[in-house]
Amino acid sequence: MERLRISVVHGPNLRLLGRREVEIYGTASLESLNAAVWELAEELEVELETFQSNHEGEILDYLEQVAGRTDGFVVNAAGLTHTSVALRDGLVGVNRPFVEVHLSNTSARESFRHASLLSPVAVGVVYGFGIQSYLLGLRGLASHLRDTMRPGAHQD
Amino acid sequence: MERLRISVVHGPNLRLLGRREVEIYGTASLESLNAAVWELAEELEVELETFQSNHEGEILDYLEQVAGRTDGFVVNAAGLTHTSVALRDGLVGVNRPFVEVHLSNTSARESFRHASLLSPVAVGVVYGFGIQSYLLGLRGLASHLRDTMRPGAHQD
Amino acid sequence: MERLRISVVHGPNLRLLGRREVEIYGTASLESLNAAVWELAEELEVELETFQSNHEGEILDYLEQVAGRTDGFVVNAAGLTHTSVALRDGLVGVNRPFVEVHLSNTSARESFRHASLLSPVAVGVVYGFGIQSYLLGLRGLASHLRDTMRPGAHQD
Amino acid sequence: MERLRISVVHGPNLRLLGRREVEIYGTASLESLNAAVWELAEELEVELETFQSNHEGEILDYLEQVAGRTDGFVVNAAGLTHTSVALRDGLVGVNRPFVEVHLSNTSARESFRHASLLSPVAVGVVYGFGIQSYLLGLRGLASHLRDTMRPGAHQD
Amino acid sequence: MERLRISVVHGPNLRLLGRREVEIYGTASLESLNAAVWELAEELEVELETFQSNHEGEILDYLEQVAGRTDGFVVNAAGLTHTSVALRDGLVGVNRPFVEVHLSNTSARESFRHASLLSPVAVGVVYGFGIQSYLLGLRGLASHLRDTMRPGAHQD
Amino acid sequence: MERLRISVVHGPNLRLLGRREVEIYGTASLESLNAAVWELAEELEVELETFQSNHEGEILDYLEQVAGRTDGFVVNAAGLTHTSVALRDGLVGVNRPFVEVHLSNTSARESFRHASLLSPVAVGVVYGFGIQSYLLGLRGLASHLRDTMRPGAHQD
Amino acid sequence: MERLRISVVHGPNLRLLGRREVEIYGTASLESLNAAVWELAEELEVELETFQSNHEGEILDYLEQVAGRTDGFVVNAAGLTHTSVALRDGLVGVNRPFVEVHLSNTSARESFRHASLLSPVAVGVVYGFGIQSYLLGLRGLASHLRDTMRPGAHQD
Amino acid sequence: MERLRISVVHGPNLRLLGRREVEIYGTASLESLNAAVWELAEELEVELETFQSNHEGEILDYLEQVAGRTDGFVVNAAGLTHTSVALRDGLVGVNRPFVEVHLSNTSARESFRHASLLSPVAVGVVYGFGIQSYLLGLRGLASHLRDTMRPGAHQD
Amino acid sequence: MERLRISVVHGPNLRLLGRREVEIYGTASLESLNAAVWELAEELEVELETFQSNHEGEILDYLEQVAGRTDGFVVNAAGLTHTSVALRDGLVGVNRPFVEVHLSNTSARESFRHASLLSPVAVGVVYGFGIQSYLLGLRGLASHLRDTMRPGAHQD
Amino acid sequence: MERLRISVVHGPNLRLLGRREVEIYGTASLESLNAAVWELAEELEVELETFQSNHEGEILDYLEQVAGRTDGFVVNAAGLTHTSVALRDGLVGVNRPFVEVHLSNTSARESFRHASLLSPVAVGVVYGFGIQSYLLGLRGLASHLRDTMRPGAHQD
Amino acid sequence: MERLRISVVHGPNLRLLGRREVEIYGTASLESLNAAVWELAEELEVELETFQSNHEGEILDYLEQVAGRTDGFVVNAAGLTHTSVALRDGLVGVNRPFVEVHLSNTSARESFRHASLLSPVAVGVVYGFGIQSYLLGLRGLASHLRDTMRPGAHQD
Amino acid sequence: MERLRISVVHGPNLRLLGRREVEIYGTASLESLNAAVWELAEELEVELETFQSNHEGEILDYLEQVAGRTDGFVVNAAGLTHTSVALRDGLVGVNRPFVEVHLSNTSARESFRHASLLSPVAVGVVYGFGIQSYLLGLRGLASHLRDTMRPGAHQD
Repeated sequence: MERLRISVVHGPNLRLLGRREVEIYGTASLESLNAAVWELAEELEVELETFQSNHEGEILDYLEQVAGRTDGFVVNAAGLTHTSVALRDGLVGVNRPFVEVHLSNTSARESFRHASLLSPVAVGVVYGFGIQSYLLGLRGLASHLRDTMRPGAHQD
Repeated sequence: MERLRISVVHGPNLRLLGRREVEIYGTASLESLNAAVWELAEELEVELETFQSNHEGEILDYLEQVAGRTDGFVVNAAGLTHTSVALRDGLVGVNRPFVEVHLSNTSARESFRHASLLSPVAVGVVYGFGIQSYLLGLRGLASHLRDTMRPGAHQD
Repeated sequence: MERLRISVVHGPNLRLLGRREVEIYGTASLESLNAAVWELAEELEVELETFQSNHEGEILDYLEQVAGRTDGFVVNAAGLTHTSVALRDGLVGVNRPFVEVHLSNTSARESFRHASLLSPVAVGVVYGFGIQSYLLGLRGLASHLRDTMRPGAHQD
Repeated sequence: MERLRISVVHGPNLRLLGRREVEIYGTASLESLNAAVWELAEELEVELETFQSNHEGEILDYLEQVAGRTDGFVVNAAGLTHTSVALRDGLVGVNRPFVEVHLSNTSARESFRHASLLSPVAVGVVYGFGIQSYLLGLRGLASHLRDTMRPGAHQD
Repeated sequence: MERLRISVVHGPNLRLLGRREVEIYGTASLESLNAAVWELAEELEVELETFQSNHEGEILDYLEQVAGRTDGFVVNAAGLTHTSVALRDGLVGVNRPFVEVHLSNTSARESFRHASLLSPVAVGVVYGFGIQSYLLGLRGLASHLRDTMRPGAHQD
Repeated sequence: MERLRISVVHGPNLRLLGRREVEIYGTASLESLNAAVWELAEELEVELETFQSNHEGEILDYLEQVAGRTDGFVVNAAGLTHTSVALRDGLVGVNRPFVEVHLSNTSARESFRHASLLSPVAVGVVYGFGIQSYLLGLRGLASHLRDTMRPGAHQD
Repeated sequence: MERLRISVVHGPNLRLLGRREVEIYGTASLESLNAAVWELAEELEVELETFQSNHEGEILDYLEQVAGRTDGFVVNAAGLTHTSVALRDGLVGVNRPFVEVHLSNTSARESFRHASLLSPVAVGVVYGFGIQSYLLGLRGLASHLRDTMRPGAHQD
Repeated sequence: MERLRISVVHGPNLRLLGRREVEIYGTASLESLNAAVWELAEELEVELETFQSNHEGEILDYLEQVAGRTDGFVVNAAGLTHTSVALRDGLVGVNRPFVEVHLSNTSARESFRHASLLSPVAVGVVYGFGIQSYLLGLRGLASHLRDTMRPGAHQD
Repeated sequence: MERLRISVVHGPNLRLLGRREVEIYGTASLESLNAAVWELAEELEVELETFQSNHEGEILDYLEQVAGRTDGFVVNAAGLTHTSVALRDGLVGVNRPFVEVHLSNTSARESFRHASLLSPVAVGVVYGFGIQSYLLGLRGLASHLRDTMRPGAHQD
Repeated sequence: MERLRISVVHGPNLRLLGRREVEIYGTASLESLNAAVWELAEELEVELETFQSNHEGEILDYLEQVAGRTDGFVVNAAGLTHTSVALRDGLVGVNRPFVEVHLSNTSARESFRHASLLSPVAVGVVYGFGIQSYLLGLRGLASHLRDTMRPGAHQD
Repeated sequence: MERLRISVVHGPNLRLLGRREVEIYGTASLESLNAAVWELAEELEVELETFQSNHEGEILDYLEQVAGRTDGFVVNAAGLTHTSVALRDGLVGVNRPFVEVHLSNTSARESFRHASLLSPVAVGVVYGFGIQSYLLGLRGLASHLRDTMRPGAHQD
Repeated sequence: MERLRISVVHGPNLRLLGRREVEIYGTASLESLNAAVWELAEELEVELETFQSNHEGEILDYLEQVAGRTDGFVVNAAGLTHTSVALRDGLVGVNRPFVEVHLSNTSARESFRHASLLSPVAVGVVYGFGIQSYLLGLRGLASHLRDTMRPGAHQD
């Protein structure tokens, strides 16, 4: 089985993970989160790359650059989830399926977190499971890609 | 490791699965969906039971009866997701963690499907992955239960 | 001309017909309403069956069971019209055209009766004519079915 | 049985019928629609007259003039349905029962077509059945008039 | 003084009473709640019957059946309070005065509990007093019935 | 004192006055209304002209034509009050002060009558007094014009 | 003709009249306003009394006390117009017809001034004419009272 | 059993009770209402005091003064219920439990009466029972105070 | 290159152009506006015709009549832009591409001018440039028509 | 430098300060709050006066009386902030700049506290700092007055 | 004629042009778009510069830097159009007129694209014409600048 | 007294200060604003640092980096105030108290400036005082920090 290529995108403030608001986001750091994702990628035979930025623009630049070498995205857009039409347009524009994930149960928090601009154009959405949200999202995306991609052929 | 006990609850119309609206819900039947869930339960060493009803009241009766012999629920409440305060109250009332799942990407469908009465009281939510939504939800719930339950002790 | 098969579905509280709120619903009982519908069915050479239940779940069960032997539905969902996503899903799920009818002019009553979850997926809607709403709805559905079904072939 | 006198009023753009947007409004022309209505009027022993105008003001003038020689109206107000308080006032002002009809299922179209200013003051409403909407509306109005008018007496 | 006949209706999930969410609903079970209501009925010389169901449809069936032998209802519709047009229609349809009660102060909870479909057609409303809500509601209904019923005559 | 020139504009359906809905609009006809207005104009030494049309476009044409020979308007736009941006634009466009009047108390009627597109650009508003609304409006406009116009000079 | 008895009620801040915000309220003082009202009352053979208070409670006390000796009110409730349910209840409670007046065109000002709690229960409304609003309102009320009161009899 | 001390607060316009709008508020006067409350207080061994004012400020002053000698309030805030944040703040500020009562079924009246600023901070709410609302509210408050106060100790 | 045939439609009140509200609409008259449009049409080798009416119905009649001899429309619907479903239906019904133009920047004016019923079915929209809006709109439509029409063939 | 004259206005319930809800409002009493304000006034060479009332009307009376001897206000309108159009009108009417202050962070509390009727007409707003809000507000007002008043001249 | 200096600003994701979503944005690349704009600039004797960035902050930096050497902007802010108050503030802050353009007809797309934060402060708006939107926008801006700038003088 | 460490953060477009829109923001430049803040910091014995960026991402990076060496923030987020969930999350994430300031009275400007995402999580808010807003905010924060920090200990 040809290896899938998946990119995990972390949005603003996720470098603070594990140090702050642990009652909401848990105690794991971004490094240990990435480690867990890498481990599962290994198991699923997925070529992984991870990216974090606090800058909407940098994420858009990254999506454009990485599009040629990836089959799909796992995206935790953090605060941009609810406000960035540009990120939605970028994700649709690079034409790769993506899965939206959140560490916390956003529907149980402030009302401005209830609506996501990304969900309507995502393959699927996973939230509320802490680090597991990423792992479940990665599994879901890999499964989706294996179902929808032609054997032996990357997208584009 | 003591076996977790998890119940999967299918709401109204899910017996129609695989026969109708396959462009939205896919071609798998409820039986094959349940088979896939059972297979994963085996792998995760989870004692599973599954339940389907078109009757809101039967689901509430079931929650009450099964509460004593289960550690958590995977719930696809279908159309009741958006309208049943009673189901939300029942799920909260029996005091077992639950995961909300949907086959389709409900945020990409009619606006009355965008708000869920269950999400704010769920552990986590998975939707849009077809049958995989159940599998990811089951993994997520099992992981959550293993993290939060005392070793060697079922809830209550 | 092959006989059409049509099922008339009465939702909650319609057994009270003719005994209560006669200024809104008129003095005819459910029996006399059904009799009038049967008489017209005879005239239109339609094989009719009628069903009433106060239980949303029973109506869903019925839709699933009857789908194989009916070509379409005339539905007066009563109070469920405005609240039941599950009924909408069931009607769409069994893949038979249906006509929505109401005895009273719902748009002239309380505002919570102004929006119907069923109308957007119905063939057509008739309301405000008392018992005539059913008769007009039956005519409309029969006409629609005769226009859209292949000669000599039931649906499915 | 004394003959009922009914007037059918077609609102703006209905002269375009059958030539444009046939996927929504069907292929029948206004002439063939009127012919079908006339045929049913014959059968129902109704004296019919039909009127079309693109001008709100002309329709109001017509309502005022025809009121003395008609027992009720079948009205397809087209785009004015959703915007004309003046038409509602006119229909109420001339004190004749009327039935509202639409060719298409307006509740399945753009949201600005979901609310009708006329429905709350209509006897009943029929929509979604194409030309049949007029025929069902005419039947419904005739039935209503026969139920509510004194034998041998026109209104006013 | 002729004995009044009153029926107390408990909606979904009320069998869980006293076992769950005791910070909201208190520690009394449904049995002890019923016992307290029976005791007061005795004092007020009211013939009581009590009914609980998790099924909307069963409650509607019950209302229809019991209507001939009761003078009014005390109703705690629980989650159905906010969503069931059918229950409202059933209560209005059987033409018996009813009092709406809730154990908790629903106006101090989630916003979807602030609006009740039943209140506008109830005689009166009592909430927030725990079990006392039922007792006060029973007193209020008995008082209302004694004020409005003709001496020596049950309704209908 | 130079005579003021004032034009009274009656909108759609006002020819029906006195014959219909007399509980709302009173029993006076448009003729007797106009007579009362003429009588007061005499008293106030105002040159009056009156105009009625059911056509928005005719009213706009009239405003444009009469603007050169009038100092202000008393306008009862009837149903157009709530829907016609074009009428508002026309009244502002011809640059003459106007007073808005209604026979009935529109704020006590249907909610779609509560907002007026004309009020924010009117000098003043009078409603609810039946025919007196016109008389008070005429007095108010005359008083306003006498306060704001240069002695011995018509507008423009 | 028996003399009508009318009370003019000025709400909060109207003692500031003529000294402040003259571009909105004009340069006349409350004294000169009252003088103009008295003059017209004389002409209309109305027994007048006037009252001003910055206190909602004092106005309510006054309404209760004066009700026995007045036939109706001209009310400029100022800021209370938009916020005081108690004032509405008081005006309805004392059972005297009243006319609502405002100096400025409230519909052309901030949006919180567009809705009045008093209008739906007023006989009529006059606003935007400066001091003339009071004079027109007094004329309108006197006319209304003369039309609706029995000859030779005060209310109550 | 130590006697509870309860204060009953009547808001604006309640002195009009029994004289006006008797179809809504009944025919009992404030005096007879108070008498009924006093009688029940006797029965419940409650030290009662009653207070009425049309002035929001006087009610606030009273709450502050009486707080030291009362254990709780029965409050009918009338029109202030829907508009007075200050009253809510005062009731919370003096730190005594209170019960909200209304004579009429406010949820069946104008929409601006549907939301109460007081309900979310009340112990419980009773409305729609006429004078019985006060009696039920007094019973409910007494019961609540007996359940929550330490034996032999007044609050503070 | 075959000459395109374009019709420019001016809605209500545009005959007032240049005489009124010049701070919003500029000083050019409708004649000079038309002259500028004709000049550009010459340059673009477009056969032009222009039409103005204050009557919605006349515009609809015109659209129907002109449809056979035009390839597209430049439409300034003025006040009808925001209120006329009939105009939208007419423009869609005659099946010719159209460009929406406005002289002023409608998004910087009153909020009722922010939503256009026409924009969603227009090819493109130009506003805020005064007379240039028409010229830019004409260029845009001509360019669109040249891109989308088959060489040597008019529509229909 | 001539001394500024500033008046500090405390709205309803502020006499309860320090005794109740100390988790929101802190433990300082109104007296110690005033003392701190007086101390700073001394430092800033401001002539201070302070005023508290639970009565909207008394505050309005006070504003009117004090206007002649003050240069500006520091206002904590408490609950009236969100409901009193009359207070807003009074503050604007007396034509003195004012600063709005609150002890608590009102934007972090109930949603009905988020909108202030006073803010849009205030010089500036300070909230959330407890007693410091007053001190900062006083500094801000003094600074504003020194910047905007002519040297050696009080307002008016 | 002195040459105008105009800067064209492309917002996020516009580098993807021509490669993705060609059914919405067309097949032209950003390079060919810029080429077309340059060509027209030549014709119009405009000194052009173009800028693209995915970073809101970079666009703001650019506006600040370029302001000294440009007379106006043509801006396609893409996704930032609907979300960036900062961009609006920046455009207003640098005090240069700008024209807003979009390739697609944003009013025919998702509802979150219907409102633009930029339109109310733009000179004019052009959208829906694909690349032509830029060309028309450039023409419109050049025309506006020639009309409003003093001969022989750049802004500032 | 140990010196507090406070960081002042200026959001987008603040480098334009003093050069543009001086009627709203005043004539002081960012440099003179910073100078005034530095001067007060000196007086308050606060170690200050200031930061400006037009980039949301740079501000988030800065918050993360500076958190270890600062005790709190004074933040003028400018346009990001109303749109950036990411900035709110960053400020909460770095776990330092902050004060929100604005130069202008945002509640008196466009409605999209009325809601702040930051206010609910700020210590306090100051706006409308021009440069003084910063000075008052700095005083308020210093006071807050001195009240809440342990003697001789920086946060973390």
